[in-house]
Amino acid sequence: MSKTTRTRKTTKATKTNVKGMPLVIVGSIGLDDIATPHARRESLLGGSVSYACAAASFFTRVGMVGIIGSDFPAKYLDLYRRLGIDLEGLQRVQGKTFRWAGEYDTDLINRHTLRTELNVFETFMPELPDRYRDTPFLLLGNISPELQLHVLAECRRPRFVVADTMDLWIKIARDALMRVIGRVDMLTLNDSEARLLTGIHNIRQAASCILGWGPQYVVIKKGEHGAMLVSRRGISLIPAYPLGAVQDPTGAGDTFAGAFLGVLAKGGVVHAGAVRAALLYGSVVASFGVEAFSLDRLAHLKRSEIARRLAELKKMIA
Amino acid sequence: MSKTTRTRKTTKATKTNVKGMPLVIVGSIGLDDIATPHARRESLLGGSVSYACAAASFFTRVGMVGIIGSDFPAKYLDLYRRLGIDLEGLQRVQGKTFRWAGEYDTDLINRHTLRTELNVFETFMPELPDRYRDTPFLLLGNISPELQLHVLAECRRPRFVVADTMDLWIKIARDALMRVIGRVDMLTLNDSEARLLTGIHNIRQAASCILGWGPQYVVIKKGEHGAMLVSRRGISLIPAYPLGAVQDPTGAGDTFAGAFLGVLAKGGVVHAGAVRAALLYGSVVASFGVEAFSLDRLAHLKRSEIARRLAELKKMIA
Repeated sequence: MSKTTRTRKTTKATKTNVKGMPLVIVGSIGLDDIATPHARRESLLGGSVSYACAAASFFTRVGMVGIIGSDFPAKYLDLYRRLGIDLEGLQRVQGKTFRWAGEYDTDLINRHTLRTELNVFETFMPELPDRYRDTPFLLLGNISPELQLHVLAECRRPRFVVADTMDLWIKIARDALMRVIGRVDMLTLNDSEARLLTGIHNIRQAASCILGWGPQYVVIKKGEHGAMLVSRRGISLIPAYPLGAVQDPTGAGDTFAGAFLGVLAKGGVVHAGAVRAALLYGSVVASFGVEAFSLDRLAHLKRSEIARRLAELKKMIA
Repeated sequence: MSKTTRTRKTTKATKTNVKGMPLVIVGSIGLDDIATPHARRESLLGGSVSYACAAASFFTRVGMVGIIGSDFPAKYLDLYRRLGIDLEGLQRVQGKTFRWAGEYDTDLINRHTLRTELNVFETFMPELPDRYRDTPFLLLGNISPELQLHVLAECRRPRFVVADTMDLWIKIARDALMRVIGRVDMLTLNDSEARLLTGIHNIRQAASCILGWGPQYVVIKKGEHGAMLVSRRGISLIPAYPLGAVQDPTGAGDTFAGAFLGVLAKGGVVHAGAVRAALLYGSVVASFGVEAFSLDRLAHLKRSEIARRLAELKKMIA
């Protein structure tokens, strides 16, 4: 762990003078109470931007745009810093941090929301520090499409924008979500959400339908079954690493998207091969993330572990 | 179609004098009534050995071991013959053919059995023609484990034996099934069946558990999500071809196993690379099979279509 910490600090130190930010991510930050069939944990660090920034931090400098209350534990801020995440876009306000409580079924896939307290998130209006506005890579993590549109408008000329979403926004904010979809390069969503959004049961047809609304790429996430990248040029299948044990799947999609964009931002180029290669990284980092609650596994993950598992995954499909 | 027919006849004619049989498959033959959310069809040709032999016939000569009644339509026998399937092991007896009726849910995955009439299948005792007994490759298709054991005992020295099974046998004939598992080189079963058989929820752990009972390979079938090959040497992920439309998933697993063993028997060698390559063929032929009811798509499938889709699938994971 000390080795990881050292590596990260070095990276940050050598690049901190660069003015611009290669990757910016906006999303929620929450304190989560999570129950699985095997364990129950409280006030865990969660939220889409926490997972996504942590995952991206292995590959590039990343700016976090989010909001926390005055009750936000100092140890979680320390973790952000230790991972080298840039916090200039993080708003700290009086009040309580967003809270979410959920419970997973035996399959560790289906979950029920037990409680949601918006708290400081209720009046959140993301504001990008000036040096974030020229970011070439932007991840609109899972928050309301209205906020996603606001952040998009604050960026000057992003080269590649990815939006993630969830069933809630499809149900209660479809119009705004459709505007987001029309303005991004890639949309990521679950298979069930793709069905809900399009009204089409077949995943391949649903993805084609979404491509017709504007994005160049659609990524259909299928949890333990991997993901499917669909573009006008064809389909690419992204395998999931077959884990021997899953502890907590919360944030897996955010981790996947964050690592993906971290790798893409590091390379700086966007073409079909680079996108597929970066998605494989996303799959691998997400597989580590679900091995423990919250960001516990990502906090101590080494780059060498990522490289080793990526090689293993590639061998499984070779 | 005429081209396919010609090709098959040539193959059969040139090899029909060879004494031995490179591949033998035993299983059920049924007349199926199938209802999906979109259609309802009656007295379709079905049964595990029908699908498996049809799929294998694209790659090798295959001997069918099964039983039909006097009501079995001549057109279905003609189809077997047109595909070049060797029928010396097919018992034709007085009485009615096995019948099965099932209904699929909207997802075209879950299904309910509406009716089962064993008929001539009730007293079925498979008997292998002498020239089948030296077969190097044997597929014990989905029938009762007692019958699978009987067929296995009739073979002299098979080089590679695969057994398929289903939840029914796990529930009502576990002891006999465990004897089968202890004597075969590969077991194929669905993810839910692997859980039921081992009592272990995690698929990777369940597969490892089954390996401990004897087989060199376990193939966990996951339908539209592909399959996972597990051996002591590691894991190989077999993708499913993403279809734009599925008509009838009945027999997909049998088609997968039949094509797999057809390719393996054609090559004549068994090693990790050959097994993975043959499983990819299985995945592709199964993807064609579910595009239509019964054997309708397989009956008119061309080898060139298989080759083309295989190349497409490989590109999706390259």
